[in-house]
Amino acid sequence: MKELEFIKSIENIIGKEYLGDDCAYLRDFELTITQDSLIEGVHFKREWYTPFELGYKSAAVNISDILASGAEPKYLTVALSLTDDIDKLWVEEFYKGICSTDPNVKIAGGDITGSKNGILVSVTALGSTGERNISSRKNAKEGYVVVTKGNHGSSAAGLEMLLKGVYDKSSELVQAHIRPQLEYEFSSQISKLVREDYAMMDSSDGLADAVFKIAEASGVKITLDYDKIPHLKEVSREQVLFGGEDFKLIAAVPANIVSKIDDAAIIGKVEKFDGARLEVAGEKYSSYDELKVYNHFGEDNG
Amino acid sequence: MKELEFIKSIENIIGKEYLGDDCAYLRDFELTITQDSLIEGVHFKREWYTPFELGYKSAAVNISDILASGAEPKYLTVALSLTDDIDKLWVEEFYKGICSTDPNVKIAGGDITGSKNGILVSVTALGSTGERNISSRKNAKEGYVVVTKGNHGSSAAGLEMLLKGVYDKSSELVQAHIRPQLEYEFSSQISKLVREDYAMMDSSDGLADAVFKIAEASGVKITLDYDKIPHLKEVSREQVLFGGEDFKLIAAVPANIVSKIDDAAIIGKVEKFDGARLEVAGEKYSSYDELKVYNHFGEDNG
Repeated sequence: MKELEFIKSIENIIGKEYLGDDCAYLRDFELTITQDSLIEGVHFKREWYTPFELGYKSAAVNISDILASGAEPKYLTVALSLTDDIDKLWVEEFYKGICSTDPNVKIAGGDITGSKNGILVSVTALGSTGERNISSRKNAKEGYVVVTKGNHGSSAAGLEMLLKGVYDKSSELVQAHIRPQLEYEFSSQISKLVREDYAMMDSSDGLADAVFKIAEASGVKITLDYDKIPHLKEVSREQVLFGGEDFKLIAAVPANIVSKIDDAAIIGKVEKFDGARLEVAGEKYSSYDELKVYNHFGEDNG
Repeated sequence: MKELEFIKSIENIIGKEYLGDDCAYLRDFELTITQDSLIEGVHFKREWYTPFELGYKSAAVNISDILASGAEPKYLTVALSLTDDIDKLWVEEFYKGICSTDPNVKIAGGDITGSKNGILVSVTALGSTGERNISSRKNAKEGYVVVTKGNHGSSAAGLEMLLKGVYDKSSELVQAHIRPQLEYEFSSQISKLVREDYAMMDSSDGLADAVFKIAEASGVKITLDYDKIPHLKEVSREQVLFGGEDFKLIAAVPANIVSKIDDAAIIGKVEKFDGARLEVAGEKYSSYDELKVYNHFGEDNG
């Protein structure tokens, strides 16, 4: 959890204004912006991904944050640092993958440099706020319901198979990890329907992680009904709740709009609480440290 | 020159619209955007920089590209990948350095992850175009003059001292490399004064490199008068012309505005030509391959 500790320590230096959410909301430009990196050996192993797939996923993890903000994805910039063994064909396939993620998103430049140790990808995504209502994790309110769409835990189950080295790459679980499908419609419907403040996050670090972050930022209790959480039957409860990288969206919204969101599953409710609380499957979590938090396979947990 | 080769090969995939300049100009958001990475062992050695200085420079190399576009620097996002030995104090000092670069620029989030091998910094900068005229390297026109401000070659001379391992860190040359001063006033004056299309670049990869790129993109001949190029007397001609990372601006503009730019040195002229040509100090360059191009000390030249 070093990242969280570091971020807390820099709040006093750079201010909290743009730090609370995965995207920063720049009102003067009417956009939201996010930047995430994929580091070989930390976030991926080269042998798991074709360069096309790595391009797709590098774009997807960032576009997903834009969707979670409620904005419309518009532009990416891509910084790529490559080891000497990477050739032109690899780079072309990588960019084809980037472009395949969302045909409405344009690549607005970036940077290619050398790297001594492994492939490094850092992507910045911009989304247009336009007429949409922009989310913030601090906006969950008493009486709101928690909704999601799509299966949770599949990506972690796929990652487990990849780590074991015995897998069928075309299987639904492995594909959920390598080529996560993004929730464009869910994001667009919510951000256009909701008139009130609302909270939305993606499940990049897991469902429980996202919900607890919303509860913590909003100072509320969120109770999830485990049986309502969409997931494949071969995925464990651990993976459903704590597995990362599904890139499904979870939103706390007024109950009256839910019937207008296609295929929305109501998985929980928001209640008043003195502090922050997540309750799910008989467990109660009141601090971040109590959660099992997914860490990328190569990351230090210290 | 692998980077150039790679960029040419992806033009057909992502389109040329946002690739021609160091910044992409996003007219719908009225901004310019750029993203550049600093990789330990490729762009810097840890022992040369305090974390504060590394933060400053990571911001500076990106803000310089915004200044070269003619826009006003507004926001940065910062993706930092850190090895296990990095502590909270390091991160705080790094962010203090980032914030010190330009008090008018806000940090709009980013990402901190682990890294297996060395520190990786990737910064994205956004600039506001507002009432300013935005540059493009393809806009140099017959009859324009080439202007710059500030000393060229100092950073390369400083880097040479750092590489030799015998240096006074406070010396002007080492400081030019570690803590380059950016050309805010020159950028702002030109982008507000010029009514016509104009070209401007920073000298991140060297003066000759920038001027040749302008000549190539514009299809013109640019002749530089070496004796007019501002530089310190202890800096070699090689360093003045080909040394990188001074982050001085070079612009091809109509002659009639030059008297209104503070401390502008006229160092060359733009002439009609069938193709691209740079002439300086008795040498003629008609292709990029003929130039001695500065590569970062750790980068593959293959």
